[in-house]
Amino acid sequence: MNAVPQVVADALPASRKIHVSGTVHTDVRVPMREIALHPSSGEPPLIVYDSSGPYTDPSARIDIERGLAPLRAKWIGARGDTEASPGRTPRPEDDGFVDAAHAARAFAHPRRPLRARAGRAVTQLAYARAGIITPEMEFIAIRENLGRERAAGAPRDGNDWGASIPDHVTAEFVRAEVAAGRAIIPANINHPELEPMIIGRNFLVKINANIGNSAVSSSMAEEVDKLVWAIRWGADTVMDLSTGRNIHTIREWILRNAPVPIGTVPIYQALEKVGGIAEALTWEVFRDTLIEQAEQGVDYFTIHAGVRLAYIPLTAHRVTGIVSRGGSIMAKWCLAHHRESFLYEHFEEICEICRAYDVSFSLGDGLRPGSIADANDAAQFAELETLGELTRIAWQRDCQVMIEGPGHVPMHKIKANMDKQLAHCGEAPFYTLGPLTTDIAPGYDHITSAIGAAMIGWYGTAMLCYVTPKEHLGLPDRNDVKTGVITYKIAAHAADLAKGHPGAQERDNALSRARFDFRWEDQFNLSLDPDTACSFHDATLPKEAHKVAHFCSMCGPKFCSMRISHEVRAEAREQGLKEMADKFRAAGGELYVPADEGR
Amino acid sequence: MNAVPQVVADALPASRKIHVSGTVHTDVRVPMREIALHPSSGEPPLIVYDSSGPYTDPSARIDIERGLAPLRAKWIGARGDTEASPGRTPRPEDDGFVDAAHAARAFAHPRRPLRARAGRAVTQLAYARAGIITPEMEFIAIRENLGRERAAGAPRDGNDWGASIPDHVTAEFVRAEVAAGRAIIPANINHPELEPMIIGRNFLVKINANIGNSAVSSSMAEEVDKLVWAIRWGADTVMDLSTGRNIHTIREWILRNAPVPIGTVPIYQALEKVGGIAEALTWEVFRDTLIEQAEQGVDYFTIHAGVRLAYIPLTAHRVTGIVSRGGSIMAKWCLAHHRESFLYEHFEEICEICRAYDVSFSLGDGLRPGSIADANDAAQFAELETLGELTRIAWQRDCQVMIEGPGHVPMHKIKANMDKQLAHCGEAPFYTLGPLTTDIAPGYDHITSAIGAAMIGWYGTAMLCYVTPKEHLGLPDRNDVKTGVITYKIAAHAADLAKGHPGAQERDNALSRARFDFRWEDQFNLSLDPDTACSFHDATLPKEAHKVAHFCSMCGPKFCSMRISHEVRAEAREQGLKEMADKFRAAGGELYVPADEGR
Repeated sequence: MNAVPQVVADALPASRKIHVSGTVHTDVRVPMREIALHPSSGEPPLIVYDSSGPYTDPSARIDIERGLAPLRAKWIGARGDTEASPGRTPRPEDDGFVDAAHAARAFAHPRRPLRARAGRAVTQLAYARAGIITPEMEFIAIRENLGRERAAGAPRDGNDWGASIPDHVTAEFVRAEVAAGRAIIPANINHPELEPMIIGRNFLVKINANIGNSAVSSSMAEEVDKLVWAIRWGADTVMDLSTGRNIHTIREWILRNAPVPIGTVPIYQALEKVGGIAEALTWEVFRDTLIEQAEQGVDYFTIHAGVRLAYIPLTAHRVTGIVSRGGSIMAKWCLAHHRESFLYEHFEEICEICRAYDVSFSLGDGLRPGSIADANDAAQFAELETLGELTRIAWQRDCQVMIEGPGHVPMHKIKANMDKQLAHCGEAPFYTLGPLTTDIAPGYDHITSAIGAAMIGWYGTAMLCYVTPKEHLGLPDRNDVKTGVITYKIAAHAADLAKGHPGAQERDNALSRARFDFRWEDQFNLSLDPDTACSFHDATLPKEAHKVAHFCSMCGPKFCSMRISHEVRAEAREQGLKEMADKFRAAGGELYVPADEGR
Repeated sequence: MNAVPQVVADALPASRKIHVSGTVHTDVRVPMREIALHPSSGEPPLIVYDSSGPYTDPSARIDIERGLAPLRAKWIGARGDTEASPGRTPRPEDDGFVDAAHAARAFAHPRRPLRARAGRAVTQLAYARAGIITPEMEFIAIRENLGRERAAGAPRDGNDWGASIPDHVTAEFVRAEVAAGRAIIPANINHPELEPMIIGRNFLVKINANIGNSAVSSSMAEEVDKLVWAIRWGADTVMDLSTGRNIHTIREWILRNAPVPIGTVPIYQALEKVGGIAEALTWEVFRDTLIEQAEQGVDYFTIHAGVRLAYIPLTAHRVTGIVSRGGSIMAKWCLAHHRESFLYEHFEEICEICRAYDVSFSLGDGLRPGSIADANDAAQFAELETLGELTRIAWQRDCQVMIEGPGHVPMHKIKANMDKQLAHCGEAPFYTLGPLTTDIAPGYDHITSAIGAAMIGWYGTAMLCYVTPKEHLGLPDRNDVKTGVITYKIAAHAADLAKGHPGAQERDNALSRARFDFRWEDQFNLSLDPDTACSFHDATLPKEAHKVAHFCSMCGPKFCSMRISHEVRAEAREQGLKEMADKFRAAGGELYVPADEGR
């Protein structure tokens, strides 16, 4: 505990942090990552979306004991609809009745909580409906707009399955999408450190990484490091799924150091407070937990309010029953008391809390299938209809909502999930776990699920919850977190390409040009994981000279197709093959196929 | 060189080799893998498809210096349409003019080659057309039929996109599919060690692994070990892409020890024979190489005969030009001579060779896109039309044909590839490399491509060529080969599930039941990679006792959803929830969704 807490904080290779300023709100400064290319390329730097926060900015002073700067504090204050709150009195159960010997070190500089003034809704949805473009919205417009200028004028490609992705994202477009409930901006008024981001079908596909303490977790710096590590590789939001002792304290450290939205599953902590006995849960304990977490700044809550008493019997003949932890806790409570879920019955009261802090709902799919055999069954879709009903109630109270989705689903049943979610939940954003497209590969479920995630992202899912290689088997370590994040960045980006997001292909093109030009360093630097790309290259051709070699280790110089291709191109120039090509094209034959044949 | 050559040869965990006998041909003995489950399961062993050959049979005597037993020799001989051939005289160029100091150790027990008697076609296609059910066909029917009995009577699920997958595979069905050109059985008469397998849209999706020597490769045992390692994890065919010296000798070692079909790209060896200078290639050198390899027993040849002179200019404005090695070699030859490709012009003569040994064609897509930007372009589809033309020529000569496909294709452009291939190539089997769905993740291209592979497999691709994590960066090592194979088994199996192959889901169900019952060992043993699954589990909960624990490390005992789910189920039994469920269902509401809504 005496060591200075450290997290990884340095720029990614060849990258620097830049900021783009707002025009409506001039104090909006949107961070982006600029990747420099080799001068021989003749290309400008490539600018990419950057969720990593100040940790990749060498000029930022990182001190996790103080936390990040509260960049939204002025914006929240300027709205004049919040007030300082005395805050809930801490209780011994907040940290699971931890004794002094096992207590985690407290965060030394907690914030004083805010809450809405009486009767006010402080949600981005309320502002959007009132026609207000918040600084958060302008921030997001600039952030999402990235690359669209470069791609301006290029023909739009892709099949967006009925989404409405604009050529250019304006702050007004962000406002309108939030107002319509088609997108959410998870941004608790008590999380001013947040760099605003948006989750919606008409924006870039986002990914979430789950972290959480294990029983043996030793230091709070370690927990913060997991967060920093996950966002370094591209996580857009992070869920803190800690269980056991010290939950409150861990969450405080994470929130104060988090530039991304933090989600939680409050029922986990509520269960700890009642000694782990599901039947002992009460609305009062749960409500107290919501307020505790809302005051700390949690940006979205997973609430399993769709697990209704009547649906539980529908799971009785499943192969894998109920696999959602929250879902199974609620199912047990319902059965033990033979009562309707208190989450369902008190849903309007939960809305009142969410609206006073702007905590977004992530309506949990407690009855999601845990195996291919259980996919798309009666229990799953009954719950989805209820989530639609709850969405409308939350919207009435100006609360932001997204809907959680499965799970384990074979490829041919994925689209039905998306279509039903859109139909039942009024286009509220979908947030899915994978889905895993087969059950037979424990140890590789980041891959079984990336297949499903890419597809459902293409079909319209707004955020993909990552799965690590340890899924079903053990606790993910640091490497697993990175593998999970990179795998899901692949799925999300593949979805963006297929949806035809303007500008999404710029990075693919830049990397492919680098590959064709044998600019090895550029190829590494433009990749999602430069360290791994470079180390794989070096494993076969370690010498520095090979980084400028006009061939690679797979084929060697004699067989290199790209090298030969350059010769072909040179030859083609000499032979005036451009004209030949034109002649060939003019001669007819089906030679260019419009992209939408892929539908 | 003095050590006894060794390869991995032992059974997979809890598995034993069984054999199922033929009824038409009683000497047909089809190997399968039987996975034993824990007695507490009350379940019979699960039988799975097994491409690993005798190497996973502890009762087999493995001696890679002698090679495998020639199980097809009797069948081939009994047909009476082949004769012993003196064989081509070995030439110094066969092994790349290797000097004595660098020469690989020769295989000590080569086979005497067979060839067709004059005028006879010895291909499985010729037999199929003549109405003959060969032992190979019966072998395949039994092999493919696996699991269908267990699934008999269960409702068929899936969306097969117009394929015709039978409930039960008969030998006659195999014959008819081969006769129609919709499936191929790569089985050179000089590769009697082969355990027959089939590649076609109405059969299980297959995967190919590429191996090949590197410049520093030291021993022939190492090369054989790569083969054995690839099939141990599930590769259905293996391509030997060796370049450089000792090609002939390496191939001999591989073939004599290969229970799976071996494919090659003969132009690689032909290029070595002319000192690596593409322009120096001639039809005569190429023809000689085909005969050399056909005599050794190569089961399928990648032939880039669709790279026509007129198409090359269409690649001039691509982002990544020509990325197929064979394609770029031929493009260079065509341009240098400004002549039509000799492969195209001599295609009928190539057919004569293939028909005399039953070498199947794998018509190479030399102009496949090497980047998202180049996907589905004029060059690619012009070549595909030519491949269709060549397919018809090959079929006229009783030659078996499959068609190679891309490459790099974003998700929304994948289906067009499948549809065009079916249309242009008369339903000849499609054999695709990935496709990679984005270019931005070198180091993870097994994943970027598994997404595309699963999708195109679902749409109808018959065999998926694996991609390893080292793609674009370096030479795959043993771990990379395994990762590539397992990743592609996932893609192929996900495709089988989505197509609704009867019985495909049996393994998912068995594993999911094991998971729900906390039968950890069964879960590991049923998985594609038991070693990794077990080691991941042990990384968090290493004690043996935890292998029977009714919880896992992710949630711990208090939070375990599956454990709670068991309690819910017990509770449900008490409360008679079955009746409640029926009542709920009777009350209406949309609760069951037919599978084909996923279309």
